[in-house]
Amino acid sequence: MIHKRILPILIFLFIPILTWGKTIKSPNGLLQMEFELNQGVPTYMLSYKGKPVILPSKLGLELKNNPSFSDGFEILEVNHQEFDEIWTPVWGEESQIRNHYHEMSVSLNQVSTDRRVVIRFRLFDDGLGFRYEFPLQTNLAHFVVKEELTQFAMSGDHTAFWIAGDYDTQEYDYTESKLSEIRGLMEKAVTANLSQKPFSPTGVQTSLMLKSADGLYINLHEAALIDYATMHLNLDDKNFIFQSWLTPDVNGDKGYLQTPFHTPWRTVIVSDDAREILASRLTYNLNEPSKIEDTSWIKPMKYMGVWWEMITGKSSWHYTDDFAAVTLGKTDFSMAKPNGKHGATTENVKKYIDFASKHDFDGLLVEGWNIGWEDWFGNSKDYVFDFLTPYPDFDLNGIRDYANSKGVEMVMHHETSSSVRNYERHLDQAYQFMKDNGYNAVKSGYVGNILPRGENHYSQWIVNHYQYALEKAADYKIMVNAHEAVRPTGIARTWPNLIANESARGTEYQAFGGNKPNHVTVLPFTRLIGGPMDYTPGIFEMDISKLNPENDSWVNSTIANQLALYVTMYSPLQMAADLPENYEKFPDAFQFIKDVGIDWEESRYLEAEPGYYITIARKEKGSNNWFVGNVNGIPIRTSTINFDFLDPDKTYIATIYADAKDAHYRNNPQAYAIRKVVVTKKSKLSQLTAPGGGYAISIKEAGKEEVKGIKKL
Amino acid sequence: MIHKRILPILIFLFIPILTWGKTIKSPNGLLQMEFELNQGVPTYMLSYKGKPVILPSKLGLELKNNPSFSDGFEILEVNHQEFDEIWTPVWGEESQIRNHYHEMSVSLNQVSTDRRVVIRFRLFDDGLGFRYEFPLQTNLAHFVVKEELTQFAMSGDHTAFWIAGDYDTQEYDYTESKLSEIRGLMEKAVTANLSQKPFSPTGVQTSLMLKSADGLYINLHEAALIDYATMHLNLDDKNFIFQSWLTPDVNGDKGYLQTPFHTPWRTVIVSDDAREILASRLTYNLNEPSKIEDTSWIKPMKYMGVWWEMITGKSSWHYTDDFAAVTLGKTDFSMAKPNGKHGATTENVKKYIDFASKHDFDGLLVEGWNIGWEDWFGNSKDYVFDFLTPYPDFDLNGIRDYANSKGVEMVMHHETSSSVRNYERHLDQAYQFMKDNGYNAVKSGYVGNILPRGENHYSQWIVNHYQYALEKAADYKIMVNAHEAVRPTGIARTWPNLIANESARGTEYQAFGGNKPNHVTVLPFTRLIGGPMDYTPGIFEMDISKLNPENDSWVNSTIANQLALYVTMYSPLQMAADLPENYEKFPDAFQFIKDVGIDWEESRYLEAEPGYYITIARKEKGSNNWFVGNVNGIPIRTSTINFDFLDPDKTYIATIYADAKDAHYRNNPQAYAIRKVVVTKKSKLSQLTAPGGGYAISIKEAGKEEVKGIKKL
Repeated sequence: MIHKRILPILIFLFIPILTWGKTIKSPNGLLQMEFELNQGVPTYMLSYKGKPVILPSKLGLELKNNPSFSDGFEILEVNHQEFDEIWTPVWGEESQIRNHYHEMSVSLNQVSTDRRVVIRFRLFDDGLGFRYEFPLQTNLAHFVVKEELTQFAMSGDHTAFWIAGDYDTQEYDYTESKLSEIRGLMEKAVTANLSQKPFSPTGVQTSLMLKSADGLYINLHEAALIDYATMHLNLDDKNFIFQSWLTPDVNGDKGYLQTPFHTPWRTVIVSDDAREILASRLTYNLNEPSKIEDTSWIKPMKYMGVWWEMITGKSSWHYTDDFAAVTLGKTDFSMAKPNGKHGATTENVKKYIDFASKHDFDGLLVEGWNIGWEDWFGNSKDYVFDFLTPYPDFDLNGIRDYANSKGVEMVMHHETSSSVRNYERHLDQAYQFMKDNGYNAVKSGYVGNILPRGENHYSQWIVNHYQYALEKAADYKIMVNAHEAVRPTGIARTWPNLIANESARGTEYQAFGGNKPNHVTVLPFTRLIGGPMDYTPGIFEMDISKLNPENDSWVNSTIANQLALYVTMYSPLQMAADLPENYEKFPDAFQFIKDVGIDWEESRYLEAEPGYYITIARKEKGSNNWFVGNVNGIPIRTSTINFDFLDPDKTYIATIYADAKDAHYRNNPQAYAIRKVVVTKKSKLSQLTAPGGGYAISIKEAGKEEVKGIKKL
Repeated sequence: MIHKRILPILIFLFIPILTWGKTIKSPNGLLQMEFELNQGVPTYMLSYKGKPVILPSKLGLELKNNPSFSDGFEILEVNHQEFDEIWTPVWGEESQIRNHYHEMSVSLNQVSTDRRVVIRFRLFDDGLGFRYEFPLQTNLAHFVVKEELTQFAMSGDHTAFWIAGDYDTQEYDYTESKLSEIRGLMEKAVTANLSQKPFSPTGVQTSLMLKSADGLYINLHEAALIDYATMHLNLDDKNFIFQSWLTPDVNGDKGYLQTPFHTPWRTVIVSDDAREILASRLTYNLNEPSKIEDTSWIKPMKYMGVWWEMITGKSSWHYTDDFAAVTLGKTDFSMAKPNGKHGATTENVKKYIDFASKHDFDGLLVEGWNIGWEDWFGNSKDYVFDFLTPYPDFDLNGIRDYANSKGVEMVMHHETSSSVRNYERHLDQAYQFMKDNGYNAVKSGYVGNILPRGENHYSQWIVNHYQYALEKAADYKIMVNAHEAVRPTGIARTWPNLIANESARGTEYQAFGGNKPNHVTVLPFTRLIGGPMDYTPGIFEMDISKLNPENDSWVNSTIANQLALYVTMYSPLQMAADLPENYEKFPDAFQFIKDVGIDWEESRYLEAEPGYYITIARKEKGSNNWFVGNVNGIPIRTSTINFDFLDPDKTYIATIYADAKDAHYRNNPQAYAIRKVVVTKKSKLSQLTAPGGGYAISIKEAGKEEVKGIKKL
């Protein structure tokens, strides 16, 4: 049973350890990491319970117009210390997080150039983090990174759950294969995207989930990506060695640095139990504590959106077909002929407000409210949106007041069309406009190729932009949910107003041809390692042609699976993405979305196998309610769990939303069965789950009267 | 005698002309321009008094991933009209400007693609302007310019005053040569610069000054460069045909456009009298009227600066030698050891304030006041300045209050180090900081290579930035004097807060090895065609080693020449660039700098020959004072002028600041003679001018008593 206990509050501990060895062990002693200078080349290796995780692997960097920084080193100093703390996240899978590690920092000098670097290792019970630190020094003041040479040498031909390395998109389906098979599968893995630049036939993205033949689960990623290029991994598939491959800028350079500087942490999470990977908080722990002092304005949120109808093609973001090109400030929309399909009309938005209000949702997102959508995509348009001016049929003030009167908070939408300079020029005004109109959260989007043209979504320059937008939002007390931005690396610990990212293939692709049915059994092991995802679950109508006859896409998921996602895909921002009319057809199933918690006291990882199944139980913050979610991959499976996380003194009523016996993501996705049972700490459940299916359970404490007549599980 | 008369105020006239011909004449009939479609290719030609100026020359554009837009056209429509207005500039060489032209617009359709373009020609008495206009159309909505194909076919192997075409600098000395000689001289012409990208052995910059063997003076430039790449000219030196060569972006693309759009105007100023080139207002006339309604805050200004001492190396911009790299917000300057050479110290600045106040200067510029100069250059540093934080030895509040008490206005300095994104991120705060502290003008700088890296100083993207900074400054009522920005194209008509630019080789190069002695006889024919230059004249100590023993540079100019520049180099912003102690050595000569006007009612161009001499008389706005300036090139010359611009009923005392007989820019630059004479409308002057010399005259109305005992000229 994997769970995160409530730990006693510890005082920060920084304990110097009096040893000069170059080996450290994790606090529980199960992980061991060794540093060695091999003929002047820095190397490290990592083992878990005596099994190799990382074979001896090289460390270093290649610099531009500068001698290589990868060999000829001598050790100046080795320092050891221990650190232990408990910290309280603003939101999260649990209310308190322990950050406990043994640290070793190795100070190196490159003899021929007299340049120094410190490599800092932190070994936790759940894995390793390490980074390069460059102290301020005359011989290394400003420099350009040609490539980072960090290796992760695998011990064999592991199974990997991977997506293609790409400078501009993470929106691929995962492929499960042996490392040796990646090259052969790459072409198929690179499916079409609105902006994409794959770079190597063996290049893959992090966070990368691996499983060894001897039963180790290994996750490679990075933490605290700040002002540095995003790391991909390129595989030497003869020797199964991954090497870092940073995202270049338009000129092919990978980083402009000046000392003092440190890279992001390179992370290796490892366990022989897949549930431990999901329970790991290593990525957050390697980030700095919150820089936002007053976090009272940061609040988890369940929301709906005038969105899915555009995604499916039922309605449009743009208002008119009159203009081949829009010039903001000049094009006169008041005279334009509406195309009759615009989604963000006052009338339609009010319908959503009514529904969201009736069902107690916190917020409503509206896309396509502001002028510019007529030619926003594919034109490399610089001044593409002003983030201020509504279409003539969107009564901003009226909607604002109506939503307010109905207790629904409007969620702002800032599609940038990846015109980054334009967004930065408008940021202050756009954020102020939000505050003036009561918007406290923004969904930002970076669809299409980046401007400045030739730049990449994940280069240092653009990573720096996302951070700029995030920190400026904090100044305005605005929560950010950035789509198509770089995948998260635990930065939400430091900037908890980053309440979600997309940065992976989300539910929208279910309307663009579909996701693999087991996609959601992989994401928590990969994308979610760095932070929450705005996956936008809750689709009840799987046949998209029913919304838009011209779209024959199919949502590869059962309704029960969709419900489970509210538990398994952790996010403090959860959408109910489908149309009100589709929820109205299934009010009993919809009840779970209404009930499910959005912020958690405690989480228990009950079952997990990447690509196959995940079962998680979570206790709602501020109540005694528990919620369980199970998502299943493609084979039919029986999930078996017990309820020993429940309070021993209490009795509960569990409402189980499960696949019907004949449910199937493709043939029978809307077949579900809901049953109520009484559960206690001693209960056990065996539950059949369909292909692409799963189940969701809401568990509420019940008095003796309430349980009468309800079957015990 | 060339002068600009005070014209009667005309009402705006837009007179349709009922002709369908494809030929137009200038209002005075001396210029004739013909448009012709030559087998589907648009062409134009221009003549002056029957002499060819532009031989038949092609027009068109090459687009990226799009059919060529240069042939296969048919004429849809030809429209003619006349326009005549008088407008009042906020500042300038004269108080009223006439804008009178005959216009022809030719609407073309490319038959095979059904794409339209309008070519609009405006023919003035002083030359031709034309541009491409792309109406909004389905077949041409968004497009990328590969190259503009505008030709300027010369009628022979003209003499040109040229600098090398370059994407990043205009700071070259001019070369006088035949067109056929450019190729052979190019290598020598491309002298070292802190950021430079020459592109072709026959590529030159505009504004380009030419002289034909048959006595025509021809100037090629552009007007109203807005959101488009800067035009250079590439010479086919077999046929003497110039073709437009736009500045590319980092990817080699030359413009991202969307319809409706029009290019800047391509301009041909022409006369058989060189003085008419200087008197031309064609460039301003082709720009839009002022977009600033209340211009009361825009004021011409005479200023000094804590600047020349840094330029010469006598003192430094940076404060300390302690830091190999500065990290703004982290590097602690309070603990750093001063290098002992910092120029912008409170004490030093107060000395300048005292001097400026005593001599009635309006303003004082201080460079090196803000942290970041330790590693500002050559490091491609992104976050290089914050534009807010002074060095510990610069008491911003104290200096502000002291200057205020002394009636001196502080001029802000924003060196961007070409880190354009960083500047835009800080612009609002930096401008607000200026207003909060009483700064109403800013000198901005773009030294070094542009960030975003790989971009060019003159590409569309960066041109767009200068405009952004300028328009935002107008919002804050701030005047801008941008250095190293794109050369002006008359935009100051529309945005009169652009009170000056550098954008050419300024006086600073006199401390970096020297300018050619005749440099200032060329600049008014080239750089100044587009707008005023902050040339920073007024250097009295020509031997730079006297300021800094390690700098053996020499200022190639006599003191009389330096004085004349305040008249010949028109700018509403004029610096007295030398150190107070150097002015104190020559108080009689300094008197001219104190006296000379800064804004003008009327200007008369008395003598002019590019590369050789310029003599201009100007009447001060709001007084009866006239000032005359003459700059001479390298050969000794006698300048002969009369004073018929003076009021016939008045008597004046003229103070003539002239080269002494043995003066010479190299051997005897400080030899000058000052004499007072009485002048009237009938006076004539023959004045010897030294190599690199000249003279300056201040002319003040005098009563009978005052003229007693003073010789009549």
